[in-house]
Amino acid sequence: MEAIIAALRQAVGADSVLTGSDVSMRSAAAWGTPRNVAAQVLVRPRSAADVAAALAVCHAHGQPVVAHGGLTGLVDGAWAEHNEVVLSLERLNQIESVDPVGRTMTVQAGVPLQTVQDAAAEHGLMFPLDLGARGSATVGGNAATNAGGNRVIRYGMTRDMVLGLEAVLANGTIVSSMNSMVKNNAGYDLKQLFIGSEGTLGVITRLVLRLRQQPSSQDTAWAALDTFAHVTDFLDHMDRSLGGTLSAFEVLWQDYYRLVTSPPARSVPPVSAEHPYCVLVEALGGEPESDAQRFEAALTQALEKGLIADAAIGKSQAERDAMWAIRDDVEQLLNFKPLFLFDVSLGIKHMQGYVDTLADELAARWPAHRLFVFGHLGDGNLHVAIHPGAADPDARSEVEDLVYRPLQRIGGSVSAEHGIGLEKKAYLHLARSPAELALMRLLKQTLDPKGILNPGKIFDLSEGCAAKPT
Amino acid sequence: MEAIIAALRQAVGADSVLTGSDVSMRSAAAWGTPRNVAAQVLVRPRSAADVAAALAVCHAHGQPVVAHGGLTGLVDGAWAEHNEVVLSLERLNQIESVDPVGRTMTVQAGVPLQTVQDAAAEHGLMFPLDLGARGSATVGGNAATNAGGNRVIRYGMTRDMVLGLEAVLANGTIVSSMNSMVKNNAGYDLKQLFIGSEGTLGVITRLVLRLRQQPSSQDTAWAALDTFAHVTDFLDHMDRSLGGTLSAFEVLWQDYYRLVTSPPARSVPPVSAEHPYCVLVEALGGEPESDAQRFEAALTQALEKGLIADAAIGKSQAERDAMWAIRDDVEQLLNFKPLFLFDVSLGIKHMQGYVDTLADELAARWPAHRLFVFGHLGDGNLHVAIHPGAADPDARSEVEDLVYRPLQRIGGSVSAEHGIGLEKKAYLHLARSPAELALMRLLKQTLDPKGILNPGKIFDLSEGCAAKPT
Repeated sequence: MEAIIAALRQAVGADSVLTGSDVSMRSAAAWGTPRNVAAQVLVRPRSAADVAAALAVCHAHGQPVVAHGGLTGLVDGAWAEHNEVVLSLERLNQIESVDPVGRTMTVQAGVPLQTVQDAAAEHGLMFPLDLGARGSATVGGNAATNAGGNRVIRYGMTRDMVLGLEAVLANGTIVSSMNSMVKNNAGYDLKQLFIGSEGTLGVITRLVLRLRQQPSSQDTAWAALDTFAHVTDFLDHMDRSLGGTLSAFEVLWQDYYRLVTSPPARSVPPVSAEHPYCVLVEALGGEPESDAQRFEAALTQALEKGLIADAAIGKSQAERDAMWAIRDDVEQLLNFKPLFLFDVSLGIKHMQGYVDTLADELAARWPAHRLFVFGHLGDGNLHVAIHPGAADPDARSEVEDLVYRPLQRIGGSVSAEHGIGLEKKAYLHLARSPAELALMRLLKQTLDPKGILNPGKIFDLSEGCAAKPT
Repeated sequence: MEAIIAALRQAVGADSVLTGSDVSMRSAAAWGTPRNVAAQVLVRPRSAADVAAALAVCHAHGQPVVAHGGLTGLVDGAWAEHNEVVLSLERLNQIESVDPVGRTMTVQAGVPLQTVQDAAAEHGLMFPLDLGARGSATVGGNAATNAGGNRVIRYGMTRDMVLGLEAVLANGTIVSSMNSMVKNNAGYDLKQLFIGSEGTLGVITRLVLRLRQQPSSQDTAWAALDTFAHVTDFLDHMDRSLGGTLSAFEVLWQDYYRLVTSPPARSVPPVSAEHPYCVLVEALGGEPESDAQRFEAALTQALEKGLIADAAIGKSQAERDAMWAIRDDVEQLLNFKPLFLFDVSLGIKHMQGYVDTLADELAARWPAHRLFVFGHLGDGNLHVAIHPGAADPDARSEVEDLVYRPLQRIGGSVSAEHGIGLEKKAYLHLARSPAELALMRLLKQTLDPKGILNPGKIFDLSEGCAAKPT
């Protein structure tokens, strides 16, 4: 490692290469169980050229490298072992330009999401990606993990908001593909390789982001519903009635709704907690007055049709914020230990059966279990939190099996928006066929023949490891 | 070739392998200069397994293969030489299923776009891709070329409407990646490799398409504008005022507007032809009455603000259809021979300067030239039609130079939505850097090591050919 440190110092400057306690005192994750960085060396490049120089050194030495953004990932995708070099993008933190007419922003990869959001707002525009970690998560990390969030139903995933990017390949080659147009069919769309591949195919250094018109109206409501069929019909009704403005449709199963609207949670229930499903629905539009009328009319129609049993509309920004605080009060889950949190994807038509079966199986195995389900229904994305009821050393793998295995049969996915990282690697084969996994490995071997980029994340290069749970 | 024909017959059945006049009588393109298929052999697989078997034979023999969809491409991307085998997807023409709750449709690659649109409409849903060739173009071809069309500003390109797909690799391996969910971050998003790569990395056999709510309102208008700054401000104003419902914003420079609203064209001008720019704007929404009010109010505001000089709203479906017929009357261009038609992409902020410079240079070179410009402004996509004025054998390459070369400096693209094929291959290097081209070649060599899939399209495998015009 000493030779590599020396070569890195030569390549990017001594002040850009940290070792010893400068590295070991750093936190390895923005939340979850506190732990520090285990790697011994951390490089802080100031430019894409620095990233290229550092990777060229690592490539020459066959030295594994793990890129770090805001460390807000949830699947151990940025975990670096003792023998790995961390490449932190923290100094690539400049917004390079905003084009208000073309509605694009050119940024370095280490800019925090919230900084991007704020800079767009200064131009009357919006970068629609939004998630709880906005203050720490970087847009480079958002792109590397194809982050989702609360507005996917309207604006898509991060993949849909990146027009161009620059990435450095394992061998230090800079591939600058900084397209700034919505349409560009000049050959292969190379950026797709780097978006969502969790730092295993290249290190993203710059991005061209697509901005949107900033909405001038926000209408938010909670509704209570009695059947899952009503939930899907309500989604259909609201989408149809609101034209293109439906921007969030978050469903909370009753147990989670009760958890986040009863003490010790500070929120009070905006609609009755006596119904099996509650939905947070939001529209973002262009004319506050008429949008509010339309939103209320759509809810009234839903009540008249019997789709919803109860509804409450946020009448002020404070009320709307309080409505979102209910949805986002995931901290209430931390009262349950151990707790296993999942992010899965499945067809809406399978959801009710999937959750009911899971509840039955959990009840049979752990009578005192708690099951909390909520998610982005329109996207087919559920978050599932499970407390087995008592400390049980084997509970994690048993619970994982109950959550993940049924997804294979119904064409679901073990990861909707969190990625695979290390945490879900053992279950990737449930969501992807052997032919898909073989093609992923072929891409990895082609772009990173020495396997130095975030090695062991998503899948192992040998077939055996990804095919069975560890 | 006889050995290959025999092997293909053995692999997929004799009735699925056409030769002789059964092939040579076939048209090679749905429009443009009439010419017949030059290839001697055409395979018509009935299934993905047939496609795999046929490709395995061709791979074993190093036999080049060109996949055929609806043959409506505009860049000679499906041209097959005498020594190439055509793989027509025409028998893969089944809609396999529609999921109205999950809003997906599973189709074989050879289904025509219009058939997909109609099937979605039967369920009250919409497949938003739309383009003039809808009756002939297949969804497999749309995906292979990442087709755009008139609604990209709202719904994106084909890439944004494909959730999953199945493709057969050059060696006959079937990679089924039939994801049906909006969110699936389980490893690399393999479908991106095959979308927009023009049949050079694999043959698409099946797709899962994302459907949307069918709009219940359509509001359409023509507006006349006096400056290009007004055009961009008008786009901004309409997008802001219409919330999420703005679905088309088509700009016609004056010469094209006059061409399609004067005899021999059958349309009459809905707004005065005395202004330098005319815009066709459309919103698709959920409530006919209030949407119409809002649309008219937004136009009235634009008039009051002085953004637009004149406007006309379509008051019936017939009037709206007539408004679109003006935009789509590209046949008027066929009165000019020779005529060179381009599809380029550039930042909106560069558009006016680009078109003005082009007009000046054309005028200097060919005083009697005609220049017609129109396009999807919100997407940065212009269509440019140029008639040099007189027959001139060297005109094509000179005109191509005038159109394409300035794009390099301003970060534009030589192809917005038509692709590269053979026609634009010599200019690809103006839109892509050497590092990008090298990475494209690496992908091609990895997925198709023998170079049998649509060889010579987009780029040549040796570096020299793509770097200079032929």
